[in-house]
Amino acid sequence: MARSVSVIGIGTTAFGVLEGKGLKALAIDACNDALKDANVDRSAIDALYVGNFLSGVLAGQEAIAPQIGYQLGLRKETPCTKVEGACCSGGIALRHGYILVSSGLAELVLVVGVEKMTHASTEKNTEGLAMAMDHETELKTGVSFAGLFALVAKRHMYEFKTTPEHLALVSHKNHENSINNPRARFRNKVSLEKIRDSKMVADPLRLYDCCPISDGAAAVVLCATENARTFTETPVDIVGVAQSTGYNSLYRTPNPLTFDATVIAAKKAFHMAGLQPDDVDVVELHDCFSMAEIVDSEDLGFFPKGRGGFAVADGLTRLDGKIPINPSGGLLSKGHPVGATGVGQVYEVVRQLRGTHENQVRNAEVALTHNIGGTGQVATVNIFRRH
Amino acid sequence: MARSVSVIGIGTTAFGVLEGKGLKALAIDACNDALKDANVDRSAIDALYVGNFLSGVLAGQEAIAPQIGYQLGLRKETPCTKVEGACCSGGIALRHGYILVSSGLAELVLVVGVEKMTHASTEKNTEGLAMAMDHETELKTGVSFAGLFALVAKRHMYEFKTTPEHLALVSHKNHENSINNPRARFRNKVSLEKIRDSKMVADPLRLYDCCPISDGAAAVVLCATENARTFTETPVDIVGVAQSTGYNSLYRTPNPLTFDATVIAAKKAFHMAGLQPDDVDVVELHDCFSMAEIVDSEDLGFFPKGRGGFAVADGLTRLDGKIPINPSGGLLSKGHPVGATGVGQVYEVVRQLRGTHENQVRNAEVALTHNIGGTGQVATVNIFRRH
Repeated sequence: MARSVSVIGIGTTAFGVLEGKGLKALAIDACNDALKDANVDRSAIDALYVGNFLSGVLAGQEAIAPQIGYQLGLRKETPCTKVEGACCSGGIALRHGYILVSSGLAELVLVVGVEKMTHASTEKNTEGLAMAMDHETELKTGVSFAGLFALVAKRHMYEFKTTPEHLALVSHKNHENSINNPRARFRNKVSLEKIRDSKMVADPLRLYDCCPISDGAAAVVLCATENARTFTETPVDIVGVAQSTGYNSLYRTPNPLTFDATVIAAKKAFHMAGLQPDDVDVVELHDCFSMAEIVDSEDLGFFPKGRGGFAVADGLTRLDGKIPINPSGGLLSKGHPVGATGVGQVYEVVRQLRGTHENQVRNAEVALTHNIGGTGQVATVNIFRRH
Repeated sequence: MARSVSVIGIGTTAFGVLEGKGLKALAIDACNDALKDANVDRSAIDALYVGNFLSGVLAGQEAIAPQIGYQLGLRKETPCTKVEGACCSGGIALRHGYILVSSGLAELVLVVGVEKMTHASTEKNTEGLAMAMDHETELKTGVSFAGLFALVAKRHMYEFKTTPEHLALVSHKNHENSINNPRARFRNKVSLEKIRDSKMVADPLRLYDCCPISDGAAAVVLCATENARTFTETPVDIVGVAQSTGYNSLYRTPNPLTFDATVIAAKKAFHMAGLQPDDVDVVELHDCFSMAEIVDSEDLGFFPKGRGGFAVADGLTRLDGKIPINPSGGLLSKGHPVGATGVGQVYEVVRQLRGTHENQVRNAEVALTHNIGGTGQVATVNIFRRH
């Protein structure tokens, strides 16, 4: 019954410190870019989904979806909806666009992820991000997200002999990757020594183990695969889509070395695609901290549990490795405008599958994106294939 | 291709000042109530939608959907998603549950609307509610929502000879209705004189012309109509569903006496249902201010433009009138916990169509709910029919 769905257009702003443009303006820029890339007129869009986390807290603005839809010039019949699931908001937005097209309830759907953060103070951003934590079991402890992922890192080191060097190597790889990415926040060369010696934030996580507060927006246009060629020469098919729910806090998680939400979403998405981790050629995953990349790469099935750090040390996740992870630079170095990230990942892998990425993975046919909220409360996994 | 969808269970908290329970606890109470009413085990739920506006700003808590899903004991495979569209968030949540069931992507979906407001100061609530306004054209003027609807009222009076008495009569009717509603915030008898003489808030709107800040949650369980009888003796069918996008502010609205979003959503919902306004037996509409009830009743097609105030004066919208509006007491007297309202309206009309409402409209067969965000940025209209 369900139709196959393809990405026919992608658009984005740079990720970084974007002064002089507000949240909605950034979203509109990315949407216009995607509409142009898709050769689609805005009047043909049947629905808009906006993935965003902190517009209320950081910009004092809610109801952004209909406002963006109006300013963009969509038809009034077009439902415009914001979905929110903390740092996973972008992935959730993509899935909702997929649902409408797959079910036949819409022909053309525009999906945008957006966040504006750098205008606010570090304190305000920390306060905002902490709203992703369950109050009753996590926020009240006073621990920050860096602190939570540091706990995960400490335990991962204890159980599996993962080392601080492994963490530094994740960050170093992602910083190397983003040098070529014009959309990335950090494009300067950073030595392994500088990463190793950077300020300790929450032992064992140092400054370069943490993703930067950023602004940005990314957008995609979706349509039924059967119609994709009427719009573009280079559609990319969405072959697996899943969203799952994990424990509501690290406190509740019986095994903090794995995020159940990721494991379950990956299993569902691979099953839907009829594929396995070995079939994936390129990955954009949720490296909010270097430790997260290691845990995620295991949870997604690319390496056995406990081997993620060693895989990085062995170069398996580099551009020329067995399974290139975060060629964009990832959240660590491309940047993490939270609501935008899940859609920004799709932007990156679509370029890979079109064969036009600045860090092109050779013969990339299958790609995976992975987005997570909080310490694994919610996750989305999407699998894409060259048309 | 699309399946028909029915409401098989409803649950709610009271609407009012609910001390001692947080936002998520209220949502969970309403969900448990709805699951019990539907005779559905929580492990059978395929998706959860949460309609909420201000959890971040007023409770410092985001990512509430997966947190509620986890605490409720749903399966980890169950996607849990918050949708936000200001005061229309509940109506948007309902529509998303409908989409999943109608498309066959889910069998059983739980939808909850929730808001917790009364713990916060009036200033904080005013600040939060104002986040529904477009910053660039509306918020920066400093006008409150009461002020915006007062502008609409002044113009309505000028154009159509609507009177302050008409406004008072809307409020009086809704306060009379909520005396019998155990879920309502206000259950005391209020005289027309008291309403007429109440404090001026924004000329011509007085205190009783404005809905009260409230706490509350309401939930429904949806399934395919073809399976509804296996769960309940009294399913209610959803025969029309629409969500539309209006102007992003009153400033942009060429004619402030009508909300385009309502007109368009109503047209779509009636078309989908194959029905007309005359076929509707009972209505719960978005009377955030008494003036809004008059405008809405016209925009929905129950009265010609400009006649809404006179219709109230003629008693046409009373329980025994031609078209009973807000038998629950409406936002004005049942209360307006913003994210909960759109789902709370569904709770009320399902009771009407089951024939078990405290203010039962005789022989009610068809009901309509109408939810709006901001000054008409977004609207949902849903039409229900006795099974």
